[in-house]
Parts: sequence; C-alpha cells; structure tokens
Amino acid sequence: MAVNLYIPSDDAVFPVAGIEIGVTEAGIRKADRRDLTVFRLSAGTSVAGVFTRNRFCAAPVIVCQQHLASGQAIRALVINTGNANAGTGEPGMLAAQQTCDALAGLMGVSSQQILPFSTGVILEPLPVDRIVAGLPGAIKNLSPGNWVSAAHGIMTTDTLPKIHSQRVELGEHTITITGISKGAGMIRPNMATMLSYLATDAGISQPLLTQLARELADVSFNRITVDGDTSTNDSFIVMATGQCGLMIDSTSHPHYTALKDALANAAKDLAQKIVRDAEGATKFMTICVEQAKTAEEALLVAYAVAHSPLVKTAFFASDPNLGRILAAVGYAGILDLDVAGVNLWLGDVLVATRGGRNPDYQESDGQRIMKEPEILVRIALGRGEITETVYTCDFSHEYVSINADYRS
Amino acid sequence: MAVNLYIPSDDAVFPVAGIEIGVTEAGIRKADRRDLTVFRLSAGTSVAGVFTRNRFCAAPVIVCQQHLASGQAIRALVINTGNANAGTGEPGMLAAQQTCDALAGLMGVSSQQILPFSTGVILEPLPVDRIVAGLPGAIKNLSPGNWVSAAHGIMTTDTLPKIHSQRVELGEHTITITGISKGAGMIRPNMATMLSYLATDAGISQPLLTQLARELADVSFNRITVDGDTSTNDSFIVMATGQCGLMIDSTSHPHYTALKDALANAAKDLAQKIVRDAEGATKFMTICVEQAKTAEEALLVAYAVAHSPLVKTAFFASDPNLGRILAAVGYAGILDLDVAGVNLWLGDVLVATRGGRNPDYQESDGQRIMKEPEILVRIALGRGEITETVYTCDFSHEYVSINADYRS
Repeated sequence: MAVNLYIPSDDAVFPVAGIEIGVTEAGIRKADRRDLTVFRLSAGTSVAGVFTRNRFCAAPVIVCQQHLASGQAIRALVINTGNANAGTGEPGMLAAQQTCDALAGLMGVSSQQILPFSTGVILEPLPVDRIVAGLPGAIKNLSPGNWVSAAHGIMTTDTLPKIHSQRVELGEHTITITGISKGAGMIRPNMATMLSYLATDAGISQPLLTQLARELADVSFNRITVDGDTSTNDSFIVMATGQCGLMIDSTSHPHYTALKDALANAAKDLAQKIVRDAEGATKFMTICVEQAKTAEEALLVAYAVAHSPLVKTAFFASDPNLGRILAAVGYAGILDLDVAGVNLWLGDVLVATRGGRNPDYQESDGQRIMKEPEILVRIALGRGEITETVYTCDFSHEYVSINADYRS
Repeated sequence: MAVNLYIPSDDAVFPVAGIEIGVTEAGIRKADRRDLTVFRLSAGTSVAGVFTRNRFCAAPVIVCQQHLASGQAIRALVINTGNANAGTGEPGMLAAQQTCDALAGLMGVSSQQILPFSTGVILEPLPVDRIVAGLPGAIKNLSPGNWVSAAHGIMTTDTLPKIHSQRVELGEHTITITGISKGAGMIRPNMATMLSYLATDAGISQPLLTQLARELADVSFNRITVDGDTSTNDSFIVMATGQCGLMIDSTSHPHYTALKDALANAAKDLAQKIVRDAEGATKFMTICVEQAKTAEEALLVAYAVAHSPLVKTAFFASDPNLGRILAAVGYAGILDLDVAGVNLWLGDVLVATRGGRNPDYQESDGQRIMKEPEILVRIALGRGEITETVYTCDFSHEYVSINADYRS
C-alpha cells in the first residue's frame, strides 16, 4: 500500500564508520520477529536528540533526556519494539533504567552512556526480562553492515523498511550519511510515533549537533502528519562519529552549510517515507501554504487541511471535493482571514480564487490531478511572504482496519 | 447505524402555535427527495441565531446575519438541501438574495424578513431557479403539523430524522418546545455541519433571546464533535412566538430559569442526536474532563481525546487501548500538566492513576465497558475545579465509505 516508497538496494546502503548495529529476536511481544536493536558507537561520537513534547512522554524518553543531559559520551542505543513503555509510571522508569544497566554491563560502559528507546503498545508493563535476555544476541550480531536489518528491526505497523543512504563530497572528504526511520500512524509534529536514527562519519561538535538536530527536525519530522496524534515515544537521534576526519565545530565552517543540507535532505526523506508508508495511505500529499504573514499561521492552515478527515477521505476517493479544503482553511484559526484573498491550486490547476470557485475550473481537470499518487495542494493566503510545507496522506478503510485491529 | 437515537411518535411531536411549515420536492440535486422547507412565523415572533465561525462561511449565513441585524421582524425561513451555496463568491450571495426575494414576494413581506439556509455540497453554484420554482409548492403545503416532515426535509447524509418535542408547565402556562436538527459529519463546535431550528410558543424579548441563543449553543451544539471539521453553513435558530401568552423579557422573570433549562434540554438532545447519527457511528461517547484550572484547558483535553482518530478507531473496535487516551491528554496542549495528577476512568473503571496504569485494572473490566453502545470517559486532571463535557462518536469503516462516496 505504500506510496512510492523507495528502498535502496543493499549495496547502496553505506555503513557509517564508527557505528556497528546488532539486531535480534527477543520475543518481546511476538515470536519470530526482529524486535531488539543495539547501536554501538565508537568513542568520540557526538549524539543529539529531539523528543516528543507529549506530557505523557514514555519512560525511555525521560531516561534519554537525562542521559544526554549528564554530559557523558553516549556509547550505545538500545531499541525495542512490541511495547512502548509509556503510561507505565515508576515501574516503567525502572524498566528503562534496567535495560540501560544490562547493556552497560555487557559493554563495559556506564549506564548513563546508553540511550533506550521503546515503541509499540502503551500502558502495558515492559517485559524487561526478555530485553535483558536478548541483549547478548544483539551484541553478538554487531556489524557495520546491519543498517537494513535495523530498519526491519524497528518496524511496528510499518509495511516497509525506511532507509536513506548517500555519500557527499565535501572538499577532500567523502562523507557518508545513512539513516533509518519507523512509524506509520500517530504521526504529527513534536513529533510522530516515530523513531529515526541518522548518522554521519563527519565530525560535528556537541553544541553544534544539539542545535542542528532541532533544525533538522523542524524541516522534516516536525512537518509530517498522518492522523494528528502525537506519540509518547517520538525520538530523532543524530550521530556524528567524526571517523572520516572532517570536524565541524561552527556554523561558519566552510563545509557546514553543505553538510547541513545533505543531512536535511536525508531527514526529509526519512520523514516523508513515514508518510508514504502511513497506515492505509494510498496518496502522498504535499500541503504548501504561501503568502502567510507568519510561519505560525501558515502552519495553522497547513495542519487544518492535513488533519481534516473530510479532506483526507476525499483524496482517498480521488474526489476533487475541494470545498472541503476551503472549509478547513476557513476554520484553521486565522480570525481576520479575508477569504477574497485566497487562491487554491490542486497541482497546476487553479481551483478557487477570490474566495470562490475559479470560473474556468473544470471538474475533469481536478479529477486528473486527484488520480495521481502524489498530489500538491497549494494555498495562497494573500497576506504576506511566508511559506510553510507539510506532508500528509489520505485516509482510507485500511487506516480504520489497522487501528481497530492493532492489538489483536 | 445510529446509536440509541430516539424518535418521538408523531402524536408526541407538538405543533408550536404561531409556526407553520411547508416541505416540498424541488429537485435541487436529486429527484424524488424532500429538499425545500419553509417556516412561516406569525407576527410578534422573536428570532435569534448562532452561526458558524468558519471564515469561508456560506452566502446564506452572511445573508442571515445581515437580515437579523437589520432589526426587521423575521417572518420566514427557507432551507434547501443538496447544495450549500458555500465557496460560491458573489454569485452565491446573489443566489441567496434571490431566494429571499422570491419568498418575500410570495408572502407579501420584505426580503430582509426572510432567513435563508443551505446545506449540501460546497463550491458548486446554487440552482436558485429550482428553489424559486419550488417555493409555491412549499407554501401550499404550509401547516402547523409538519415538524416531522421538516425533520426529513432538511436531512443530507443523516440516516434518521432528529426531532425533540416537550411540554412544560410554567405557572398557569403550558408551553410547547419543539425543534429539529440535521447533520452527520463535519461536526465540531462553532459549530457543526448542522442546522437546527428550535421553537417555543413562550414569548421571549428580542435582546434576551439573542443572548439566550448563544448560551444554549454553548451547552449543546458547541459541545459536540464528530470529525473536528467545522462547516461553512452551521446555523442554530431559536424562535419564540409568544402565542401561549407568557412573555419573558428579563433573566429575573420568575419563569426564566425553568424555560431556559427546558430549552437547553431540547438543544442538548437535538445536538446529541446529531452525534448519535454521525456518519458511521457505532458508539456514543461522553468525554468528561474534571479538575481543570479553566474551561479552556478542560476543553483542550476533551477535544484532543474526542478528535483523536486512534482513540476513535479503538472505540470502534471495542478495544480498551486506553493508552491512546492518555497520549491524547498528553499532547492536548497543557504545557505544565503534571501527569502524576491524572486519573482516567472508563465508565466506573479506574484505568490509569498517577500517570500510569492502575495496578488493580483488569483488561476484562475495560472490555466490558467498551462493548457498550454508550461510553463515559472521565478524565480528572488534578489541577482545579472546572468540568467540561463533550460528546462524540467512534470512527468506523462506514465513516470512510460515506465520506469517500458522498458526492457520487
């Protein structure tokens, strides 16, 4: 069902020097499923993260933030599927800590040098004993070439693995950027039911990476939405090993912008892949709001359109029922919006102008665009100069089926 | 599919002295369908309205507001289905005005004494010629006993007519309250894709009725949500004919509170009936948020839960996946929410306490509640004394089918 989700061939997924990955089957929720993944990071790797703002954030998210704040060098990540360890109170915190303790013991580092991640059902106790029992197998499996396996290992309701890999020439250096992501529902900014791990063998100083991770999230994972639900567990981790010999410690470094652009390209691709594989998605929609006064109001409109079940079901039906889009623009929350200044395009077709239907609009033109698997919705507000773009998908029977059956 | 939607028998629907209703088939969008309704109001009737806040509000909504503001006594309402006359620009305004002109001419009143209403597809020109051609038939059909017919005449994707009728003793007076509503999707406050007409033969002075209409909306139509979409056409009209001889012109009138309570009861019932018949609904859910600091934050939480597609699909599946509710509470937008103070009940079952699963909670208890057609979700925030309640429904395959096929 995924919409144009490109999976690179195995030989186009480049290992990142300084990172090894081990994946195993720990039987956390179901048997015969890769559900436990460990990243081992070489000494000198900078690590930064962006996390959910959900007040019911999961125990591992709290532990991640504590460990990142401790100032100790992060040396490993541990990721389980099947259980999100969210809404689990004190026992959940203990379970996340025990997971770190166990891995730290096996690796000879301190517990604070581990970042734990969990994804799956919420409000159920984490079977920490199974995770601890599985860790030796994951460590035995450690290898630089396991990115594809890890992309499978972190999947939940995903139908396909999500991987991005590229090489970029920066002066005399060839740097590698490889990342994976997961998530298929409960996706919306700050952030999504998503986990994503993006690594480069370029070196980026810790303060710079901390700032950069936030900027990368704001053009990628914070611009996607499937159903408007923000998960308790969202985490986006950026790792810079420095193994390629290039070290960047300032935004004024001559290669900084090129590296940032390449990382942003990777983050956007990993974010969009989540939407392409969203639960039940049959269409990939780009909602571009132009001529706004502020980024805030542009995003209000973009998300109102992207979240409207009526808009999403119309796209599922390939029905150019564009009045539903105008209705969403109208209730988005811009109280002084003059609808006479609003223009709406579907692809290259001007559908509505000056608050009403474009007199030249033919339904057959709208229909032609709606049948495409990738659709651009462009809304010009006629108020200013700001543009914001959000990515989303349609709303199908399959979405209901998946979410009505997820736990059974 | 409607959930416990009570339809009174014909002899329990009481005419309201001073109001006659005519319903006809004007062939506005489809043949053989009652799609045009006229209310004729006796002289001396006070009329007040509450309308959508959607910036793309439909032409008839603008005309209604102009006519109510003109200060002339309203003498008739005209309601068409099949076309919402929304997103139609200047031609739409003209069409709404032409509708009023035609009815005013037939009734010998001024055009400003007519309120027009439209519901149906948006962004398509209103076939005003068919409406005008249908008006004589509607007038010929005028009768005090046509409330049930009118309830049918204003239906769009509704599966059942929505009618409320009651009689109340106020001192020596027996007053009648009868109303109808329509709407099944694109429902959320301020307001819903809904039309509702509530009448009483009590007399209420114009300034008092204007204020009262807003208060009634705030406990009824502004507390329901189906899919979070706010329509361009929502209108709630309250009419007080004064024909029973009782006249109330102040909130300190000895019968004011009793009359207001009776009208609120009627408005709530008409609003809840919309949710009970919501597109694809199989469950009716009451989301009650207690111990909030303010009404605003209580409503933030209630709507976050009520709008979450993940919560709604879990209810459809009778799956007590209550973590999804906690997640929605967490992202609702109370930035300083202490999750340790949050308690969650499903019916009478305490599911979560102090931010985590209640240790005594048994999934079988949750399951028992989830299988009921009417479910109370109670969320105590532990922050204050304010309670707000919102009514919503689950999210089913049928919702997607209806909204993917609506125009075909």
